[in-house]
Amino acid sequence: MRIKRRPWADELYAENQDLFRKFPYDLRGKWHEVFKNNQPIELEIGAGKGGFITQLAQNNPNKNYIALEINEMALAYLLRKQAEKRLTNLFLVVGNADEVGQYFAEGEVSNLYLNFSDPWPKSKHEKRRLTAPNFLRKYHQILATDATIQFKTDNQGLFIYSITTMANEPEVLIDKINFDLHHSDDNVGNIRTEYEQKFADKGQPIYLLKSHFKEEKNERI
Amino acid sequence: MRIKRRPWADELYAENQDLFRKFPYDLRGKWHEVFKNNQPIELEIGAGKGGFITQLAQNNPNKNYIALEINEMALAYLLRKQAEKRLTNLFLVVGNADEVGQYFAEGEVSNLYLNFSDPWPKSKHEKRRLTAPNFLRKYHQILATDATIQFKTDNQGLFIYSITTMANEPEVLIDKINFDLHHSDDNVGNIRTEYEQKFADKGQPIYLLKSHFKEEKNERI
Repeated sequence: MRIKRRPWADELYAENQDLFRKFPYDLRGKWHEVFKNNQPIELEIGAGKGGFITQLAQNNPNKNYIALEINEMALAYLLRKQAEKRLTNLFLVVGNADEVGQYFAEGEVSNLYLNFSDPWPKSKHEKRRLTAPNFLRKYHQILATDATIQFKTDNQGLFIYSITTMANEPEVLIDKINFDLHHSDDNVGNIRTEYEQKFADKGQPIYLLKSHFKEEKNERI
Repeated sequence: MRIKRRPWADELYAENQDLFRKFPYDLRGKWHEVFKNNQPIELEIGAGKGGFITQLAQNNPNKNYIALEINEMALAYLLRKQAEKRLTNLFLVVGNADEVGQYFAEGEVSNLYLNFSDPWPKSKHEKRRLTAPNFLRKYHQILATDATIQFKTDNQGLFIYSITTMANEPEVLIDKINFDLHHSDDNVGNIRTEYEQKFADKGQPIYLLKSHFKEEKNERI
């Protein structure tokens, strides 16, 4: 996401240091202290401007939500929203998807959302795709037993790549493949991201993939 | 496939007993004797009227082809074609997909084709779908190491089912998922079945899925 740096953002970050953390290595294993309760913790990687996770947090006060985003300017839009709403079950993180294993302890995350991730279409950039095997293994580490990965995209290439990759990871089981989320039963309760609404307005199909890890972790992880 | 029984078919079967076999339990492990050479043997399950496999056999004289079909009337159309062409590398089988393990020895088949198989949309009929786990395990038994399964369909429900099923079979690796075969690079060299041509004429997308089994067979099989 390309978003111009704006002075209001710096001010916002300075004024709301209780609502976010940058690269929270020291919170690993201690997220329940941040939320001050023992509710399950769900994570969105690449939360962008945060429309999706804000709605999710509002709908589910009995769960905690962490919005992870590497782009500080995108996340500033979410911070602005959160500075108004001050949802107690939502916390913002400026951080690197590569480092989730350093931000979260084993099994600390109970569900993972990936929405409209960058497709990185060139094969030399495969490892940057958030559904590449190197990422799946990191997710496996931090996800609780029975946690699901919910992935939405408008990008057919990334969708096929993600299905194939998950299909060929022995630890991953695929629960759902949907070629046209908005015109299907799975659309009930679906929360649209900002991107998703734009694509839907153009009549483009939205793809959905849900999966989870097998219970037994193998030694590689 | 609903095809009316016709008298010419009975006659054709009576006159061409060298070109086909019904329920060939006794040929298991002996197919090289039927073809009188040691060329690899490829199998289409549900060959229908046989346009696909006839073309494949003509294009690849260095391989042998077996057209398996349970519907004798559908296969009669292929028999009529074959009675004229008498391709030495093509053989017809009236048989049951359920029984492939009784027709073929372990590793006797070097590639498997499934084209526009019956979708059996009701979940109570899941076991009849040719990509159901019960079938995949039978295929695993008869397929040689490195053999591929090539599956084409116009039916999105069956396609998603097939991907999901194969994805979750630990022994299956997915090689290719294509949402629109005819408008892609994979279309080069693609042979269209009779059904496929009809669907293409209507502008409907054709789906392709290619997979293979991991080398090591596990004990369940």
